[in-house]
Amino acid sequence: MWEQVGTSFVHLYYQHFDASRVQLSALYMDASCLTWEGQQFQGKTAIMEKLMSLPFQKIQHSITSQDHQPAPDNSILSMVVGQLKVDNDPVMGFHQLFVLKNISDNWVCTNDIFRLALYNFA
Amino acid sequence: MWEQVGTSFVHLYYQHFDASRVQLSALYMDASCLTWEGQQFQGKTAIMEKLMSLPFQKIQHSITSQDHQPAPDNSILSMVVGQLKVDNDPVMGFHQLFVLKNISDNWVCTNDIFRLALYNFA
Repeated sequence: MWEQVGTSFVHLYYQHFDASRVQLSALYMDASCLTWEGQQFQGKTAIMEKLMSLPFQKIQHSITSQDHQPAPDNSILSMVVGQLKVDNDPVMGFHQLFVLKNISDNWVCTNDIFRLALYNFA
Repeated sequence: MWEQVGTSFVHLYYQHFDASRVQLSALYMDASCLTWEGQQFQGKTAIMEKLMSLPFQKIQHSITSQDHQPAPDNSILSMVVGQLKVDNDPVMGFHQLFVLKNISDNWVCTNDIFRLALYNFA
């Protein structure tokens, strides 16, 4: 069950992100937390301000792997590893983690942590 | 508070992993879930069997970034991005996610998802 919920959420999340970011609003709630490249945002309003202000015209995510687990308090934990392409920049790796809760029959995201995959193999 | 708990846990986890894997046992509980490169393990016994069976002599983790958030049911969510070196193999990127719960005054890990960072920038 959690695999299916997690996979559906992840699909919908990146579909909205790439096609119409404003629709992501439906996937957060007032108590949600986002950590974006180390910066913390609390609540749907602050999160949507951040996501809508990201400075690019086009973005395209592709998913390399996704893992889902049942987590405390009937939540579902999802870890996504993938690649994204922003405007005409080179492809970058990213990873993103979600905690999903069922609120009034909708699965929404209470926790979201995003990082670009920047490694220094010096 | 959660930053401090998360950072301490992450420090202890990789210290044990690199120096004496068997001690990781204290950081899991019977209800813990591990997803290791897509393979699922449930419970401290199954998790420790997997971790103890990993086929290398030496491993060294180094952490690139870690993010922590308060999560449902008073849990703490931690996402770690880093590099690891196994025996004489080349350095590889990895990411690992933990959900931490306070059980009888100890912080243990209820959820653990691990992936090597393998990207195809074809």
